[in-house]
Amino acid sequence: MRNALRIGLVLAALAAFTAQGQAADENTPPAVQALHAHPARTPPSLLAGAPASAWRTLDPHDTLYVTLPQGRVVIALAPQFAPRYVANIKKLARQGFFNGLPIFRVQDDGVAEWGDTTGRKSVGTARRMVPAEFARPSRHLPFTALPDPDTYAPQVGFSDGFPAARDPVFDRAWLVNCYGMVGAARGNNVDSGGGTTLYAIIGGPQRDLDRNTTLVGRVVQGMPLLSSLPRGKGPLGVYMNRSHWVRIESVQVASDLPAAKRTPLEILRTDTPTFTRYVQALRDRRGPWFKVPAGRVGVCAVPIPVRRAP
Amino acid sequence: MRNALRIGLVLAALAAFTAQGQAADENTPPAVQALHAHPARTPPSLLAGAPASAWRTLDPHDTLYVTLPQGRVVIALAPQFAPRYVANIKKLARQGFFNGLPIFRVQDDGVAEWGDTTGRKSVGTARRMVPAEFARPSRHLPFTALPDPDTYAPQVGFSDGFPAARDPVFDRAWLVNCYGMVGAARGNNVDSGGGTTLYAIIGGPQRDLDRNTTLVGRVVQGMPLLSSLPRGKGPLGVYMNRSHWVRIESVQVASDLPAAKRTPLEILRTDTPTFTRYVQALRDRRGPWFKVPAGRVGVCAVPIPVRRAP
Repeated sequence: MRNALRIGLVLAALAAFTAQGQAADENTPPAVQALHAHPARTPPSLLAGAPASAWRTLDPHDTLYVTLPQGRVVIALAPQFAPRYVANIKKLARQGFFNGLPIFRVQDDGVAEWGDTTGRKSVGTARRMVPAEFARPSRHLPFTALPDPDTYAPQVGFSDGFPAARDPVFDRAWLVNCYGMVGAARGNNVDSGGGTTLYAIIGGPQRDLDRNTTLVGRVVQGMPLLSSLPRGKGPLGVYMNRSHWVRIESVQVASDLPAAKRTPLEILRTDTPTFTRYVQALRDRRGPWFKVPAGRVGVCAVPIPVRRAP
Repeated sequence: MRNALRIGLVLAALAAFTAQGQAADENTPPAVQALHAHPARTPPSLLAGAPASAWRTLDPHDTLYVTLPQGRVVIALAPQFAPRYVANIKKLARQGFFNGLPIFRVQDDGVAEWGDTTGRKSVGTARRMVPAEFARPSRHLPFTALPDPDTYAPQVGFSDGFPAARDPVFDRAWLVNCYGMVGAARGNNVDSGGGTTLYAIIGGPQRDLDRNTTLVGRVVQGMPLLSSLPRGKGPLGVYMNRSHWVRIESVQVASDLPAAKRTPLEILRTDTPTFTRYVQALRDRRGPWFKVPAGRVGVCAVPIPVRRAP
């Protein structure tokens, strides 16, 4: 998603494209207008006009930096949904647990997975296993519901910047496995995960994993560093040769870095009128290109905008 | 999706994993069982037991080979849905139109797009523009409907091996923009596409494009060659530097190659009891790992199985 970059670029490009679009004949051959052909999902003008209060700074205490040889992946953690997992993962990170561990599995239209492949690396004062946090009470949870039907859940929407679902009857809410979501691998026992091995969704949503794994956050910058990795040729995308492993240089909690070393990101608050208008604009795509606005939008088809702090 | 490979490998790996799974303690730390943590979406045993009649050979007359420096991408064309576009694209291919043209745009969680960036390359006896084929009559169209609600369409399912939607009231059916689907770029005019520039979905479904582009087929092998390409840093994923372009060596119609040079693939027929059982198995994931079977499945979450011909 890499929304910060995407939005920035789309904004930067808009003037040029709009001018080009206005000048172009309706019958200009397709290639000339190829850049119009698949507009970004993000209505940029709406976001450009949003008040500063519609954005919030990512909390550095709940932000992870995964440093790969290719660059930094930024993960916004979700303590509202997985408090024990988030605390454990931060503890692991602060002990340098992930440093030097590999991305060992990249499955096409699936997940990238990294962490301890041996199950034996010392977790120090952290825990190797943490009780599952698949869902939580939905009452008192901020939730911006989408009006459209979802295949999998009674209701879907957004909570504190994360795509989520809820079942009001049973008072349960949970995060959903959209593109960029990060979860904890586990064995067959529901309580056998702990965050020592994590995955990110790099393809279509894997909603069948909802409530089967503990989701701990979302990649808010750097997705291409994961999504464009070579796919593993082993079962489920495992790299058959360790020489293909991508070594994690470090995983750090942002607040442990001096401010100058942090990536200053803001996320569009999902409980604001701006966000509601943004969702509405995605549901009802207009402009010269769209001919049949869907009038609907899926929970995983709403990129939650992220930008560099101005 | 690269189902052929995926399924083959999963089958090959099953014995090992099953044995390992049975031997593993329920409380074995997660990394040891990491391979169980995100099972492939494909219930392999079901497919292994399918009768030969449940599979059909890809029709070489409606199969394209896109040869990249990295290998071959195989596209199953959909003349049932886009007869004029498919005919035009085959004509373009047979004239060598695509040979040497670039993949010029790779947008993260979006599309890869290739073709004529100038709009001026000679189309010979083919056409530069073809009237849109966004939808077709749904009556008399084979359609295996999914029982679960869809966000975007009144009904979704599968037709002749493609993910599709239909609206029985208005007698319309159309292909949907799931992972791996291939469509024709166009300008603002609905009839300004023609297949000289094509895109493939390399991230989450882009259902807002449904009925806004003419979908012409689906990548049935070689998706990783597209999905793992570096993302373009320009607007909408355009490669800012032509040195990043991936040059297409050739696009050929499979039937124009001698049999020995073809990729012998079979696709699971979507109008068979095997396919229905397969969908049901995806809806109701069981086994030692899944704790909360979704009981539902989305049209874009059903990988349509493809295998090498036995």
